[in-house]
Amino acid sequence: MSSTEPSDGVAVLCGGVGAARLLAGVVRAVDGAQVTAIVNTGDDVMLHGLHVSPDLDTVTYTLAGAVNTETGWGLQGETWQAMAMVRRYGGIDWFNLGDRDLGTHLYRTHRLRQGASLTEVTAEIAAAWELTLTVLPVTDDPLQTRVTVADEGEIGFQDYFVRRHHDVAVSAVRFVGAETARPAPGVIEAIEQAGVVLIAPSNPIVSIGPLLAVPGVREALLQRRSDTIAISGIVAGKALKGPADRLLVELGHEASVTGVARLYADLASTLVIDDADRDSCAQVEASGMHCLVADTIMRDPEVAAQLTRSILDEHRARTQEQNR
Amino acid sequence: MSSTEPSDGVAVLCGGVGAARLLAGVVRAVDGAQVTAIVNTGDDVMLHGLHVSPDLDTVTYTLAGAVNTETGWGLQGETWQAMAMVRRYGGIDWFNLGDRDLGTHLYRTHRLRQGASLTEVTAEIAAAWELTLTVLPVTDDPLQTRVTVADEGEIGFQDYFVRRHHDVAVSAVRFVGAETARPAPGVIEAIEQAGVVLIAPSNPIVSIGPLLAVPGVREALLQRRSDTIAISGIVAGKALKGPADRLLVELGHEASVTGVARLYADLASTLVIDDADRDSCAQVEASGMHCLVADTIMRDPEVAAQLTRSILDEHRARTQEQNR
Repeated sequence: MSSTEPSDGVAVLCGGVGAARLLAGVVRAVDGAQVTAIVNTGDDVMLHGLHVSPDLDTVTYTLAGAVNTETGWGLQGETWQAMAMVRRYGGIDWFNLGDRDLGTHLYRTHRLRQGASLTEVTAEIAAAWELTLTVLPVTDDPLQTRVTVADEGEIGFQDYFVRRHHDVAVSAVRFVGAETARPAPGVIEAIEQAGVVLIAPSNPIVSIGPLLAVPGVREALLQRRSDTIAISGIVAGKALKGPADRLLVELGHEASVTGVARLYADLASTLVIDDADRDSCAQVEASGMHCLVADTIMRDPEVAAQLTRSILDEHRARTQEQNR
Repeated sequence: MSSTEPSDGVAVLCGGVGAARLLAGVVRAVDGAQVTAIVNTGDDVMLHGLHVSPDLDTVTYTLAGAVNTETGWGLQGETWQAMAMVRRYGGIDWFNLGDRDLGTHLYRTHRLRQGASLTEVTAEIAAAWELTLTVLPVTDDPLQTRVTVADEGEIGFQDYFVRRHHDVAVSAVRFVGAETARPAPGVIEAIEQAGVVLIAPSNPIVSIGPLLAVPGVREALLQRRSDTIAISGIVAGKALKGPADRLLVELGHEASVTGVARLYADLASTLVIDDADRDSCAQVEASGMHCLVADTIMRDPEVAAQLTRSILDEHRARTQEQNR
């Protein structure tokens, strides 16, 4: 990137809700056509014969302005008639699928059965919502996050996250299929060609972990370390959403920005931490990363846009300094 | 059946709407525990990855008192949120699946994928609706009604019936899978053990036809001819619902009670015709069947119950006469 003009593109490694909120700001700060979201599919699950892609849908619905803002996932104006019937029959009702949301799963399943790739279907769904950014699944191949819990052994991610309300201790996580999964078309190119690569404030283990487990993704990132910036999803020792804090501890890490820094230090040159963690900057820098302090609590898209602008400004300034 | 007491059981060969309306009367006239509906599955279709069984559901919803009485199929209080989303994506929207109805397909698909048989799932769904009768698919094996139409060649039944609004000429009908399909558990027994076997006023070609194409069903019926009574779905030369009249003509039959009599004469000893066709009784009897004239327009369950009582009374009287 030294002799040529750096690209304005932004590639974002994404889990679900936290990533979607960040992206809503990124597309305010940067032309959406320059933004590529690379999204976790390790949470995907077959339910009732339907292919459900929770993180892809959360990103799509959020960027479409159609997400249920109270939950952060699912659709506005949702109804639950189908699930009420499933419950009547004694079927699987622990994973609540709204009627509108079901339409997405019906369409995705139909197209996959026709032979379309998940990348193609995701693009079709994004186009129907008139999204300006590119949304890519990290892989079109099967990838399944599975966790080992104390009392049941290894279970599927949604079994842990939704059915068990992630309130059970996890002793191991693995990504079944990762060894043979290939990055989806455009994933490696987006990482290679972006001016900046962001790692969203998603769960480092079970949301970003699956992306890094797909052969080629980590390698591509290592080449872009100086332009890769991670945002900590841990604020003052707590996950903003979900079980990331407990999961980090259960798996031998530290539930703190320092713990996150250690996880990402080889991949990203900067960690963005919240104002609340300002005092931990020295420790983050001790791990070999720059530390950027900002308001990371993305209460609305404008806060996320401001966060994005701060990150891009800091990156630009540092790049110019290095090139001087 | 001569030396032993005749059974009080009633077995009913069923298509969809017409059969469901008859059954609603049969369970008023006879203890539901004595009634077995043997239902067409040739119309079953995979849509969006879901196993849809239109005739089984029409029978179940009707007997549950939950059917949309205006259409005769689907559920009361239905909403269409999922289909609106499918339409947004440009998916298959010609087969309208209501949100409540989808719950049934989700459950059925889930259970079939778990390895349950269609018979088992149908019983579970019937139990959830607290039905008193037994609802059996004619077979647990794949059975697909396909029709050859003028402009497209051979297409699936729902393609013809729903997508094409059955407004295209049919030159052939076949039941793919019928040669190797086995009657579902209980089907042959129900025919053998019933006191009376009814052939519902469903389309003889595409609703009753698939039942008769399953090896063993026609043979079992032939043994019960003297206790088998068909109700004509053709009244005054017209189908009460659907394309039966046109289909009969297109396939070389007559769209009249006489045409129906010729189709069923080897299987049933009596044809029930509507008051409107009273003058055709002699022609029906010329085909070798008894002719019973009754009000067959089942405006409500009580009319259907009265029709059932008339049929059972006539059968009882004739049986006593023969045994004298």
